[in-house]
Amino acid sequence: MEFNIDLIREARERIRGRIEETPLVRARGLDAAMGCEVWLKLENMQMTYSFKYRGAINSLLALNGEERRRGILTASSGNHGRAIAYAAKMLGTSAVVVMPKTSPPAKIEAIRHLGAEVILCETSERFRIAAEESEKRGMTYVPPYNYYNVMAGQGTLGLEVMEQRPDLTHVVVPLSGGGLISGVSAAVKAVSPQTKVIGAEPAEIPRYTKSLAAGEPVAVAQKPTVADALVSTSPGPLCFPVVQKNVDSVVAVDEEMILKGQKLLLMEGKLLAEPASCIGLGAVLQGKLQFAPADRVCFLITGGKVGFEQIERLRDVAL
Amino acid sequence: MEFNIDLIREARERIRGRIEETPLVRARGLDAAMGCEVWLKLENMQMTYSFKYRGAINSLLALNGEERRRGILTASSGNHGRAIAYAAKMLGTSAVVVMPKTSPPAKIEAIRHLGAEVILCETSERFRIAAEESEKRGMTYVPPYNYYNVMAGQGTLGLEVMEQRPDLTHVVVPLSGGGLISGVSAAVKAVSPQTKVIGAEPAEIPRYTKSLAAGEPVAVAQKPTVADALVSTSPGPLCFPVVQKNVDSVVAVDEEMILKGQKLLLMEGKLLAEPASCIGLGAVLQGKLQFAPADRVCFLITGGKVGFEQIERLRDVAL
Repeated sequence: MEFNIDLIREARERIRGRIEETPLVRARGLDAAMGCEVWLKLENMQMTYSFKYRGAINSLLALNGEERRRGILTASSGNHGRAIAYAAKMLGTSAVVVMPKTSPPAKIEAIRHLGAEVILCETSERFRIAAEESEKRGMTYVPPYNYYNVMAGQGTLGLEVMEQRPDLTHVVVPLSGGGLISGVSAAVKAVSPQTKVIGAEPAEIPRYTKSLAAGEPVAVAQKPTVADALVSTSPGPLCFPVVQKNVDSVVAVDEEMILKGQKLLLMEGKLLAEPASCIGLGAVLQGKLQFAPADRVCFLITGGKVGFEQIERLRDVAL
Repeated sequence: MEFNIDLIREARERIRGRIEETPLVRARGLDAAMGCEVWLKLENMQMTYSFKYRGAINSLLALNGEERRRGILTASSGNHGRAIAYAAKMLGTSAVVVMPKTSPPAKIEAIRHLGAEVILCETSERFRIAAEESEKRGMTYVPPYNYYNVMAGQGTLGLEVMEQRPDLTHVVVPLSGGGLISGVSAAVKAVSPQTKVIGAEPAEIPRYTKSLAAGEPVAVAQKPTVADALVSTSPGPLCFPVVQKNVDSVVAVDEEMILKGQKLLLMEGKLLAEPASCIGLGAVLQGKLQFAPADRVCFLITGGKVGFEQIERLRDVAL
């Protein structure tokens, strides 16, 4: 079965009332720096502080009773793990999250606090360990992005913004494995084909830039990035064709520009979000994206789990 | 003439299209700490980053051409001054702002950046100097709170939140001279008499607590407070009777609880706002306000002009 809008519409019905319909706010304070009319979709205020809860709760609700009872295992850089841990708790089952050792302490703690078990490992090992552990423990594996019910859950975000502001000209989406952008782009194009969907990924890990050029999913090297939520080294094979079909362009953003975007969002947008959320702003600051004053551009603010030490890191970032 | 809802409705028509209708957001991340359903009205995203623009632009639009042409002079701890400076610029006239030397540098700079002249003085001298200077220079004086057109402009915020969420049970308002709470309480009570309006002021400068007990406006000592926007030592004589009539209760909040509220709003609410905006959250953290889980409580987030050094000050504030 091909991924399609019906899966997203079904997801929307399934999760209705269980997620927050987050605000889409007009952020006039950012217009000058972005060169357009700026709109922000505040998924940093979603349950578990990120959009990941949409895909997680959709996936768990779509499982049958037996699959749910066996407990849920996943691999995650943090936000998906937290979302799974919370969804599991809501539905009365257990969760195990395999996480990179480099995940922010605040994210690791938050997942443990929800009663889930955390297994820490090297970033590049997380999917292998997750597969092994779910096999060994007889638990149900719910992947972080390469999974239709996750992609469909994230896609509800696309339907939501286009209802909140049907005349958006652009939607800018942080990009890693592609779970979010595949769902969002499919949704946006289904209801508003002329709205452009743009992905922004760290230049340090340009898995989509390379894969789109190659015409197939290719892996790039695992490198560190301040955007700790965007660490996948290759596109999800299920996500990739959806991105090929629906996404208008992908840009790769430098580390310092991601942090600059985060500081700009905090000081002028008055919002605290994690670095990954600010990569679209960073793309504009870097000159990788350019908008016209009349463009109505929505940046997806995807997550808000930030430790105070991550804020202090912004001290010497010049705006 | 008594202050009344018609003045607020007129203000609303007058400023329509010139101000931002700011979002009222559901802040689930704060429910546990506040013990209720938390709603935040984001006036930190208003033009000039505070609600003060409502009163400023309303006042300037209500002047006649000659009064406007003479230029506008005001006294302000920062936000009203910035709002006046911006409104003056929008309407093509000049502005002079008399400010306490203790105002945050970010606020002083922002006002100068808008082309206004800034006169720095002792906090307690600002009204005397403003009166003298406006006389000397032949400029039109627009006071920061004790002025019907300012009170009416701020009151539009009350109409707006009650339209956005008509079933709010409480509205919590930061309190200084009373310009905001007089307008907001008059508006809220006019459209929803059962909704409680609560004022929160710094315990260091408890001008309303003392004045309400005395039954008339009394002055308290000028002391420093982290809530740099709430430094008036006595209620505005025009504001006081409106507060007496419409406000359900006033609480006084300790300095450390104001900062704790600011850190809570940043880390769990994902919003950057100035200390004054967080005094209502501080009141709950201090036990001065208690809500029931079913209460739908709106906290007015009144301003967002914060320097990075003010964020760093929160490092050692425990949550």
